[in-house]
Amino acid sequence: MNRVTKLLGTKYPIIQGAMQEVATAELAAAVSNGGGLGIIAAGGKTPQEVREEIKKARKLTKNPFAVNLMLMDRSTPGVVKVVIEEHVPVVTTGAGTPKNYMPDLKKAGIKVIPVIPNVKIAKKMEALGADAVIAEGMEGGGHIGELTSQVLWPQIADAISIPLIAAGGIGDGRGVVNAFVAGAEGVQCGTIFSISKESPVGDNWRKAVINANDASTVVVGHSIRDASRAIQNKKTEQLLQLENQKVSREEFNSSMNVGLKNAVKEDDSENGVLFSGEISGLISESKPAAEIVKTLIEEAKNIVDNKKIELF
Amino acid sequence: MNRVTKLLGTKYPIIQGAMQEVATAELAAAVSNGGGLGIIAAGGKTPQEVREEIKKARKLTKNPFAVNLMLMDRSTPGVVKVVIEEHVPVVTTGAGTPKNYMPDLKKAGIKVIPVIPNVKIAKKMEALGADAVIAEGMEGGGHIGELTSQVLWPQIADAISIPLIAAGGIGDGRGVVNAFVAGAEGVQCGTIFSISKESPVGDNWRKAVINANDASTVVVGHSIRDASRAIQNKKTEQLLQLENQKVSREEFNSSMNVGLKNAVKEDDSENGVLFSGEISGLISESKPAAEIVKTLIEEAKNIVDNKKIELF
Repeated sequence: MNRVTKLLGTKYPIIQGAMQEVATAELAAAVSNGGGLGIIAAGGKTPQEVREEIKKARKLTKNPFAVNLMLMDRSTPGVVKVVIEEHVPVVTTGAGTPKNYMPDLKKAGIKVIPVIPNVKIAKKMEALGADAVIAEGMEGGGHIGELTSQVLWPQIADAISIPLIAAGGIGDGRGVVNAFVAGAEGVQCGTIFSISKESPVGDNWRKAVINANDASTVVVGHSIRDASRAIQNKKTEQLLQLENQKVSREEFNSSMNVGLKNAVKEDDSENGVLFSGEISGLISESKPAAEIVKTLIEEAKNIVDNKKIELF
Repeated sequence: MNRVTKLLGTKYPIIQGAMQEVATAELAAAVSNGGGLGIIAAGGKTPQEVREEIKKARKLTKNPFAVNLMLMDRSTPGVVKVVIEEHVPVVTTGAGTPKNYMPDLKKAGIKVIPVIPNVKIAKKMEALGADAVIAEGMEGGGHIGELTSQVLWPQIADAISIPLIAAGGIGDGRGVVNAFVAGAEGVQCGTIFSISKESPVGDNWRKAVINANDASTVVVGHSIRDASRAIQNKKTEQLLQLENQKVSREEFNSSMNVGLKNAVKEDDSENGVLFSGEISGLISESKPAAEIVKTLIEEAKNIVDNKKIELF
């Protein structure tokens, strides 16, 4: 037990990242049943749809799970209301500051854990009353910041007193140990859960991640200050061309949204945007989410407990 | 002792990165006297200048040191000749493949250690007969690739049999331990040595790194496929503007070279390009190089030997 498992009420300090359209009730429940913290992604959903996902997850697990608030979504005020009414124990937040929702969430006893990209915002979130932060390096899939996990984690750990949960580039026990060495007390993984058995992604998406090597992802949207990482394919090439043509942010985002829809709904691995991290090259099979949680813990324990770290 | 200290003939598996104009005989000798491996950067130097640096370093230390070959420099064939004649025990190589020089270097008994940015090139270097590779994440200062240390190191460790030396984002004992957890047997650090007492950089450069926070560096040259990382200042803004104006590669490089000269020769921290890594935010003082080596080792040993890694 540590501060993160206490905070989350979980057996293990392992969190499944919130991935829009991918982090469904089924996936979240499977992770929570495995002793981690599953997360339902509210991004792109109406409050009523989020309520249905929460109810579905409740049927599938007795364990705690969380909801991720995509703060720039217009539906967020309604989603916050649902989360409070449904007594969801933990929310993580992305794409903005949870400041306006903090009083209501805290009053309802909900733990608030923002995803943050640098020291300045981590300190701001601590001052706002956040219960922990998730620091995500730019090797991660989906929307990313500028700092890498290797430099971000220790600098955040040194700067705050609330618990640090490390994300970005974790795909095996070595990554988990690195996070704890840096000063984290928990980890969040996205890519490895995105192709778990309980994930809604199709076979083509799964194959794209499994066949990926270390150099298979690419960052798009950097020039419009909305960088995100995905498997390199026909669609990411098109997006990079749009950037190169200096199209408007709206035009870029519109093309991006078509790509995201193509990925999950159509399982189109060429015309879809497959959000995945640089760690894809290390991930070679699709396993049940609970087994992923267990393996990450076992591998990490094996390194630490069996003195597998030989300096020289 | 491990495979890297055996290969290098050093007490510790700690290497000082080759930084053009910064990695001088004085700095290299100071690192080598501290039990690490100092490196003289041959980049931008004539063969005769490199020979003088080697002779100078020999006067300052009895311990082994290395020379880094900047392979795209026109002077490289001449520098290789000097390195062989002077019986330098180790060379590291950057900016290209050492293929053409490999037979002569190996015949002379010189260990060859290429700096590589991904798995494909690591395997290629192993096949060519490299004695080890240095895998550097894009959080590092100066010229960088696309992959971050957190994902690069374990994937390289899994892909090759020769020793892996980890670089990019290492500024304290936590970074050293992470490298070994990932599978490395040695580390290379640049930024922390760039502001050591024996480094030739001026006070303004030193202050810029010491005052840097986690978000103080920026990547320039990405669009011309020659990305490098430096402290964000007036000069990096100008370089980004040039990129934005889609100037030729030659024009960009010409402006870059003026900036590099301004940095080291003039100690101009606004009009100079101060190559530094994202770890700058963690580095808060200028210390003697030997003390840096000792501290990195002591901090790493303290984490590993005193069971400072608590999972949960």
